[in-house]
Formats: sequence, structure tokens, C-alpha cells
Amino acid sequence: MKIESVDLFYLTMPEVRDVGDGSQDALVARVSAGGLTGWGECEAAPLVSIAAQVCPMSHSACKPVSASVLGQSLADVSDIDRIADLLAMESMDLLQAPHTFAGIEMALWDLLGQKLSEPVYRLLGYPRSYPKQPYASQLFGDTPEETLELSRRAAGLGYSAIKCGWGPFGRGSLADDRDQLAAAREGLGRDGTLLVDAGQIWGEDVDAAAARMDMLEEVKVTWLEEPFYGSAYESYGELARRSKSRTVRLAGGEASHNFHMAKHLMDYGDVGFVQIDCGRIGGIGPAKRVADHAVRKGVTYVNHTFTSHLALCASIQPFAGLSDHRLCEYPVSPQSVAWDMTRTHLRPDVNGEIVLPDSPGLGIEIDRDAMKRYLVDVSITVGGKTLYETPAL
Amino acid sequence: MKIESVDLFYLTMPEVRDVGDGSQDALVARVSAGGLTGWGECEAAPLVSIAAQVCPMSHSACKPVSASVLGQSLADVSDIDRIADLLAMESMDLLQAPHTFAGIEMALWDLLGQKLSEPVYRLLGYPRSYPKQPYASQLFGDTPEETLELSRRAAGLGYSAIKCGWGPFGRGSLADDRDQLAAAREGLGRDGTLLVDAGQIWGEDVDAAAARMDMLEEVKVTWLEEPFYGSAYESYGELARRSKSRTVRLAGGEASHNFHMAKHLMDYGDVGFVQIDCGRIGGIGPAKRVADHAVRKGVTYVNHTFTSHLALCASIQPFAGLSDHRLCEYPVSPQSVAWDMTRTHLRPDVNGEIVLPDSPGLGIEIDRDAMKRYLVDVSITVGGKTLYETPAL
Repeated sequence: MKIESVDLFYLTMPEVRDVGDGSQDALVARVSAGGLTGWGECEAAPLVSIAAQVCPMSHSACKPVSASVLGQSLADVSDIDRIADLLAMESMDLLQAPHTFAGIEMALWDLLGQKLSEPVYRLLGYPRSYPKQPYASQLFGDTPEETLELSRRAAGLGYSAIKCGWGPFGRGSLADDRDQLAAAREGLGRDGTLLVDAGQIWGEDVDAAAARMDMLEEVKVTWLEEPFYGSAYESYGELARRSKSRTVRLAGGEASHNFHMAKHLMDYGDVGFVQIDCGRIGGIGPAKRVADHAVRKGVTYVNHTFTSHLALCASIQPFAGLSDHRLCEYPVSPQSVAWDMTRTHLRPDVNGEIVLPDSPGLGIEIDRDAMKRYLVDVSITVGGKTLYETPAL
Repeated sequence: MKIESVDLFYLTMPEVRDVGDGSQDALVARVSAGGLTGWGECEAAPLVSIAAQVCPMSHSACKPVSASVLGQSLADVSDIDRIADLLAMESMDLLQAPHTFAGIEMALWDLLGQKLSEPVYRLLGYPRSYPKQPYASQLFGDTPEETLELSRRAAGLGYSAIKCGWGPFGRGSLADDRDQLAAAREGLGRDGTLLVDAGQIWGEDVDAAAARMDMLEEVKVTWLEEPFYGSAYESYGELARRSKSRTVRLAGGEASHNFHMAKHLMDYGDVGFVQIDCGRIGGIGPAKRVADHAVRKGVTYVNHTFTSHLALCASIQPFAGLSDHRLCEYPVSPQSVAWDMTRTHLRPDVNGEIVLPDSPGLGIEIDRDAMKRYLVDVSITVGGKTLYETPAL
């Protein structure tokens, strides 16, 4: 079949607040081929990813993403690889391209799975998918009291693993951070898995991060996520060396926009957990390559997802067949736009675990009516020519 | 002074052709503060960089570039660092941000230099600037005969160093490539400096690149540029190891969109030349940091520039004071949009060398009337609100 159309839909909450909640908007990709429709989702900055899809060519290595996708044939997995390789050359100088392609690539897997009557994880070579243990992904409260409340609530909902991130953590005194951590642990209970996300707060400052390692260990934190800029591998590596005797490991990788970046964070940054956002790394294919490398290196793969269950489902596929890579990020209280846009939701089962749909493709049913309620009208005109107008859903 | 406005102007040739010529369009940034005006230029994909400047916020770490720039105070060099650090946090998840900010950042240096009555290279800490040897940067011809003609013409214009790149090189047989290289050397003459740009043609395939090393050495090529994807450090490193006994060195780095990526190409990829495009790496500040690291590592810094003399002038500043880093990329036959947009041009002097203007800031006078001839009308509307319309020049 030939790829006939690619449509992008910008959904948003009526008000987007200045907080670290990535579920406040979404860019949904719809790809049509051979009478089938596939769906995917790009992470963040919808307008910019739309522009990358439709922009005029700057030169032979700076073409819009659409140029590498539209009209291509799609018969098996090698076609998705081929389209990704083509994009890498044709949009080499278009920085935003991997974020745009990410959602489109998910939709290609969804399409191909439907055509071949296989769930995506089987197309990736996994005979079966294993249940994952969801960790409740949430922000630190503004105060330790709020954090205590949030953790208690997540634990009450049945989560035995929670991650607290961003908010005031790392911005105030050591004592403030200690209070926040103690509150998170208290709310979760003694035995739960506690994870902490620093949101790159220390840039490249290894000392600032190292000063928190004692308190992280005191409350038995499993990983410290993104202490540094995504590309500051040396800072990761140095903190890992200084923390060799500790039980807390480093985690990172969500900013990777290609396989190599994630590989380098493992090879040079010595993280114990590599976290991949399929909506940023260019989709499911490069994420699977990261999972393969993680297995070789003894690193644990985890999805990074803070948006809809379409993105969640896509993000679990690359490590679905790895029984030892158990944890999965689970956005515990997404905004309504992220929840409403799909009819299918990956709810924790009776064991509190997340199990992928066994249906062809991604197995996520879209709710078009709900999407319409959040759909934004976008128009982009260049030189009198309309390059983008919100398509019909 | 406070940054009062940032305006972006999309200029283009009437027709953009599907060739590796980056001078066919331009995104010019104009920044106003305290009655002064600074100018800079972003590399490639103007529409996408405009969208990154004006897009709605997705969440607290995915804001438009404008949010980190407008209203900020600008009194000395530390303010530019501070704004760049702010952007790294506030637009962390906006992949295109460094390309957009790059042109704005150049304009901030231009502004600050005017305010402090110093050329930019002095603000960077260089007591003086040294003349550079321009190499004529051009594409391989479609045939060896064309390449011979192009090289002969560049040599006839007085260039003692030329670079041939892209076109058919690496796409056909080894014999084809050998003929191309022989033609380039013949046109240049025995003693000139010959450089070759493979344009990432071999992806991660070290063998394919290694198979060309004999022929590159036969015609005394100084560097082989971008044999691989920009982030494929291992491929660079392996080719460098296999080529230890050779005189030809590897070059790369133009794709770096932050300091770390360029550093890693030196540290892990073992390049002999690091090539930085100030229009991509986020401007002059991070490029200077790369130059400092290159000096520490014994790597030679070179600018990457294939567009206007505004970008060229900005791109030479970060290594202006390094007398041993002699070569500079010089677009030998840019499209008229790139040439016409400035009144000032950095022409080779009587010694065939490029000397930076000694005037405050970047010292490049813009030609507004010429710019108007290439200016494109762009309009971006989201949810009924116009976020961008081409501003008045």
C-alpha cells in the first residue's frame, strides 16, 4: 500500500498552565494507506512540529518531513526503516524533524500492524508482551505537605511505585529537598518504589547533584532522573562514578531525538535506567534499537510518557517483550485532553499491572468526537500559499 | 538596556532548487534594545524557526523562544549567558529552539558590541583577530569534467584551498569517486589544500568510508568531512582509529546544536577539525566554548558557513583570536539573496585572506532595501489569534 495522506491535529486544554505537566496539549498524527488508518502522537510544541511537516524546502538536506513520507510504499517493517533513513538525509538540517516524524512513525506501525493482523510488539520481534508495573508519575507538591498528600493518594489508588519530579525540588535549600523527599516516602509507605525526577535542574553541576545523594539514599530512592542537561554525558558519568557504592542509580534519556543520543547516555553517562519518549526519538523503531542496546549493556529500559494512552501504548511496545524491564511510566492524573482523546485506556489490571492490547497495530481506539472538542484551528500561510489548515477529523 | 523587540524575517530566492546549497533562503533576526539594533541569522528552515519563536507554551519546559528573550536586560556578556541558560530550561522540550535562538543570540552580541564600542571577538576575550585563509566551499559537479571546471575556476579566483562536497560523491562506484577526486585535485593544482565533504552519505557504515581513504590520500586531501551521521561518534572514532597512519583527518560538527555535541565529536569521535555553524549551535557563545575545548584537545576549529556574510562574520568571531586555526569556510558562489542582504562583505584582501571588521558589534551593515526584495509574507494563526505576521523592515 502507498501512504496517501498524513494529517496533524493540534489539541489543547483551553488554558495551558506554567507547570511541568506535558499532558496539556497534544499533536495527533493520522496516516492513511490502503483503506486503513493509523494513529500516533508527537510530543510537545504542536505548532512547531506542524511547521516542520509543511515548511518550504531550504535545500536538498532541509526538506519538510512530508517529503520523506507521502507516497512511500508500506508493505513490511523494512519500509518503516527505509522511510526513517530517507528522512535522516532529506531533513538532516531540520532540527525539529524527529519530533514531527515520531508521531507519524507510530501511525505507520499502527497501520502496518492492522494490515498484517499483528500487534506492534510482534512486528518488533517479541513473541509476547509482559505486564509492566506502572509507576505513578506526578509532580512534587509546592510544599512537603502537598507532596505527602499526593503520594498518599497515589499509594491509596494502589500504586506501589511513584515518581515525584520538578516543582520546587533542587531549587531551594538542601533541607527543603530533604523535607520533600521524606514527605514523598512517608506518603508512599516503607516498601514502595520511590523515584525522583530532577528535571535537569543542576545543568552540569555535579557537586549540586552529589550533595543530594545522601538524602536520596536515606529514603531509598531507586533512581535519580535527569540531574543534568540531556547531553551532559560527562556530568552523568562523573556522578555515577562518585556514587558507585550507592544503591540509587541515575536515569535519563527522554530528550534523545535519535538512537545515538540514548546509546551515548548509556555508554558514556553510565545510567542504570534509560528512559525513552517514542514521541521524541523519532518513533518506535529507534526506541526498539535503544532497548536492544540496553539489554546488551545491562541497563533497564523504561518508557517516558506524560501524555495520552495512545502515546503510552506506543511507548511500551519497544520493551514489551523484556520481562525483566518491569517498570513503566504511567501518567496518573493527565489533563482531560490526554484522557478523552482515546476510547481505549490502559488501566492497571487486578494485579495492578499494565498489559498491552493484543489487537492488531497499537490497538488504541481514537475518540474523534472528543478530539473535536479540543481541536485548535491553525493556519499557516507563506508567500500567499496556505501550507497548513486544520484538516477535518 | 532591556530587550524590547525581536523580529524575524524570512528571505528566499524565488525558486529553491533541490541541491545542497544552503544559501537559497535565510532567516534574519533583528533585536532592538536601548535605541540600538542588532542583527543575526538562523540557519535553515525559516518557517520552523519562526514557529519556535511564537508557538503557544506546551508546559513549563516547552515555551516559545521569545519567552526567554523579550524583556530581559542586556548590560554585559554574562547577560547573554544567562539568557541562554534560561532558554535551555524554559524551552528544554522544544527541539527547534537552538536553531531559532542562534540568530537572536548573534544579534545580542551585535547589540552589546555596539553598546560597549567593541567588536564581538574582543567581548569574547580575544585581544585581536587574525586573518583567516578562506577555502572556497562548493559542490562536486555532476561529472568529473564539471568538478574540474569548478575547481579550476576557484583556483583562478585566487583560492589556494577548496572544498568539494555532496553531489554524486559516495553515491556511485569507487571508480566514480576516484575520478571526481582526481578532477578536483587537477583543477586546484598540486599545492592547494583540498578538502572533501561527504555529507553524511555513509550513515554509520565505517567500511564504506574506509574504502575511500586510499584514494583520498592519493590526491592529498586534508580532511574528510561528515562521513557519518552527526551523532554517530563511534563510527567517527573507528574510522579515525583505522586511519591513524594516514595524513587525511576527519572533520565534522556542523550539526551540533549545543556545546556538548561538538565536545563529544572531539572526545569520542576523534575528529581533527571541528566545524561549527553559529546559526545552529545556539549562537556565538556556545561556539566559543567549543573553540576553547578544541584548543585544549589540539583539534582545529573551523567555521561552517554556507550562507550570507552576516552569518560568516558571526561564525568567525569564536575563533578569531586563534592564530593557528587558519582555515575558514567561505561560500564562493552564494545565491543572490545571501549576497545582497548585507552592504558589508568580507572579501579576500590582497593576501587572499579574510579579515574581520574592526567596528563595534559584528560590523556588518544590513541592506534593508535588498532584503525587502526577497522578503516573504508569512502568517501563522492559532485558535483565531495571529501569532506571527511578517514585520515591517
